[in-house]
Amino acid sequence: MNFKEAAGVQAADVVTSGMKVGLGTGSTVYYTILELGRRMKEEGLQFTGVPTSEATEKLALELGIPLAELWELEPLDVTIDGADEVSDSLDLIKGGGAAHFREKMVATVSKRLVIVADESKAVAKLGAFTVPVEVAVYGWRSTARRVEAEGCVAVRRERSGEPVRTDNGNYILDCDFGLIVDPGAVDRRLKSLLGVLETGLFVGMADTVYVAGPQGVRVLKQQAGE
Amino acid sequence: MNFKEAAGVQAADVVTSGMKVGLGTGSTVYYTILELGRRMKEEGLQFTGVPTSEATEKLALELGIPLAELWELEPLDVTIDGADEVSDSLDLIKGGGAAHFREKMVATVSKRLVIVADESKAVAKLGAFTVPVEVAVYGWRSTARRVEAEGCVAVRRERSGEPVRTDNGNYILDCDFGLIVDPGAVDRRLKSLLGVLETGLFVGMADTVYVAGPQGVRVLKQQAGE
Repeated sequence: MNFKEAAGVQAADVVTSGMKVGLGTGSTVYYTILELGRRMKEEGLQFTGVPTSEATEKLALELGIPLAELWELEPLDVTIDGADEVSDSLDLIKGGGAAHFREKMVATVSKRLVIVADESKAVAKLGAFTVPVEVAVYGWRSTARRVEAEGCVAVRRERSGEPVRTDNGNYILDCDFGLIVDPGAVDRRLKSLLGVLETGLFVGMADTVYVAGPQGVRVLKQQAGE
Repeated sequence: MNFKEAAGVQAADVVTSGMKVGLGTGSTVYYTILELGRRMKEEGLQFTGVPTSEATEKLALELGIPLAELWELEPLDVTIDGADEVSDSLDLIKGGGAAHFREKMVATVSKRLVIVADESKAVAKLGAFTVPVEVAVYGWRSTARRVEAEGCVAVRRERSGEPVRTDNGNYILDCDFGLIVDPGAVDRRLKSLLGVLETGLFVGMADTVYVAGPQGVRVLKQQAGE
């Protein structure tokens, strides 16, 4: 069992029978979903999932996990998802896969957000990873100037020379802020800008993080009162 | 000359040669654009326009007004546009035509925003008209609940039984707040919500409003320091 599999399997413990569960996307949460499928078949675990991506939807269907639309199930009991970066205070950067809008929507209507990641994603403070910011196509250059005025360098994400479009039909600006001292303030300022739909900063949302490394799985929990 | 034509024609005075001009949409600004086209042909007025809608683009092209993309011209010298409601303090509700995102984008990069409207749009305080809020399709029911928690009744806009989609591919929620005491605060709170791209509240943006009525054209100006 590799690191990621160890963390992924352990995180499956947060799901108990009868729960409504947001199913995230990523190379570690992949193992959580496999494990949840196994427990469903072999141990009688019963739950309903809401996938955050088409890839996860496909995997869940293959495993026979019953799925529903977000609006049919919310509020959810828990969402288990990956992250591109996790800070000591359990703030996250997500959106390397350009799916952070849907992921944030699912996480926001969940009573708990549990993150699984490997040690390479764990940092003291956020900022090694760029912050993905989803912006409307019309006027995106104006929007990018407003975003950069918040103290970053913003680059429109492209693949094979074409701008990446999100599920919502928008562009992604990858924004390099350097070290981010106050992610909550950065998130609020970016979200307030004309043209910005949502950022990949998840601040104060995760309550438990499973971090897999060569020494085993570390479990980080949000401190009460934070 | 009807009321609307009187206000529309008078507003054309704000455009002088060499200017870069945002061209709005509506039944009164229609006359401004006609008049600008006339002055261009008959009086040698030279300017370049950025249209806020396809209807305006078509009209301007018919009149021979040279047009450019927003990003090629910004900042603009002035934008002339209509409104669904104008308050005593020159705050606006726009978006009856579902085009307020593009209109706000053009207005935001303009040094001045000039509004033309008829007396039926002028109110002491905003709120007789509903506030159009543009929201992403995914999770829109969750978003609507968050919007309603701000103190309104939100109804998804439909036409012929189908939800209206904006140019950005999003839905419009028409939000009835009743009388709006602090439109700036409402705008900021709504914009901060997950799933909201933009609102139809234009707060502190207009500096001059031409209001056409049976007694002639009233000109309202933003007070210095406001």
